[in-house]
Amino acid sequence: MNIITISREFGSGGRELGKRLSDALNVPCYDDEIIEAVAEKHGLSKDYAAHMSEKDFRAIYPTTIGRRFSGFRYHMHPATNQSIQFAVAQQEVIRELAGRGDCVVVGRCADVILSDLNPFSLFVYASQESKLARCWSRAKEGEHYTDREIVQMMRRIDKECAAYREVLTDNDWGHMRSYNLCIDTSGKEIKKLVPGLAAYVKCWFGE
Amino acid sequence: MNIITISREFGSGGRELGKRLSDALNVPCYDDEIIEAVAEKHGLSKDYAAHMSEKDFRAIYPTTIGRRFSGFRYHMHPATNQSIQFAVAQQEVIRELAGRGDCVVVGRCADVILSDLNPFSLFVYASQESKLARCWSRAKEGEHYTDREIVQMMRRIDKECAAYREVLTDNDWGHMRSYNLCIDTSGKEIKKLVPGLAAYVKCWFGE
Repeated sequence: MNIITISREFGSGGRELGKRLSDALNVPCYDDEIIEAVAEKHGLSKDYAAHMSEKDFRAIYPTTIGRRFSGFRYHMHPATNQSIQFAVAQQEVIRELAGRGDCVVVGRCADVILSDLNPFSLFVYASQESKLARCWSRAKEGEHYTDREIVQMMRRIDKECAAYREVLTDNDWGHMRSYNLCIDTSGKEIKKLVPGLAAYVKCWFGE
Repeated sequence: MNIITISREFGSGGRELGKRLSDALNVPCYDDEIIEAVAEKHGLSKDYAAHMSEKDFRAIYPTTIGRRFSGFRYHMHPATNQSIQFAVAQQEVIRELAGRGDCVVVGRCADVILSDLNPFSLFVYASQESKLARCWSRAKEGEHYTDREIVQMMRRIDKECAAYREVLTDNDWGHMRSYNLCIDTSGKEIKKLVPGLAAYVKCWFGE
């Protein structure tokens, strides 16, 4: 089974890259679909599921438990318990979706969660200047953030991704050695890189 | 001009990847050719040029000079002076060769030396297990190194690459952010990755 996972810095274009890569390879892309599937499976509203997914996982994860999920059921504040239950539900959904066949999974430490399927794991990064420009180009009308506010938001989100990964594995987030391919998108249009990337992925899987 | 530079961990297959990529793109590959050109230009024997190229640059570079080459001519031990003169000669040759047109340059911090030409800079890495296996598969008949000796050699050579880079730039050797693409070759045959990589390089240069 050819599973491609995409981790990315906020603003690097990794989400767009995942969608376009899945189109180029003609396989499904699971991104927000994961949240929707968790919501549907557990009878949650999509807004609540999205809110749970965006929480800073480290802040609510009791460090006394250790670095893995084992034994997470007992003696916890209800809010902590909910968040961990959500994370576990999300992992189950990722495994279910990936079990259906070849796909691209964006974010959520899918490379770690699906490691037994030997996914091709990508990390997407870019210069701060380029990430800022990408954020600006996608800002909704009426949004008035300063560059500083966007940089702070980037750092916060990247830090949360790193923290979630830290709970699951010893392979650090954003470190070359944790991935099979690391792509710099600085100053590049994602859509122009995708045909070459799709060709590389096919070579990786020996097609 | 489309210049591709390849930095690599010892044993990752970066040198083979450079040669095969240049063949796939139908452009010259400069690797040992750089040493030969320095030898020819400065009337040195090839063996002596190869020896100078392999010296630990950090050990002979006087730290009092600072992090750049400016002012390297004066008050030095002749051996130090020779090594720096060789490094400068090597840089000049790399610039001359790259000036001829599209090419692949392997090693020698060519991405830094040619930064004004906006090269596509690649870094090739692999797991230690995979690098060891690659080293063994290429060992000459009669060579009797232990795994420990090979690992020590890998570390020494990678350290020397990092040290040479440190003299030239603030962008660290082997750090994702110093390169445009970082490729994990663990357990892979280089020749099978090259067609996809060539396709990606063409996309990068907008072809």
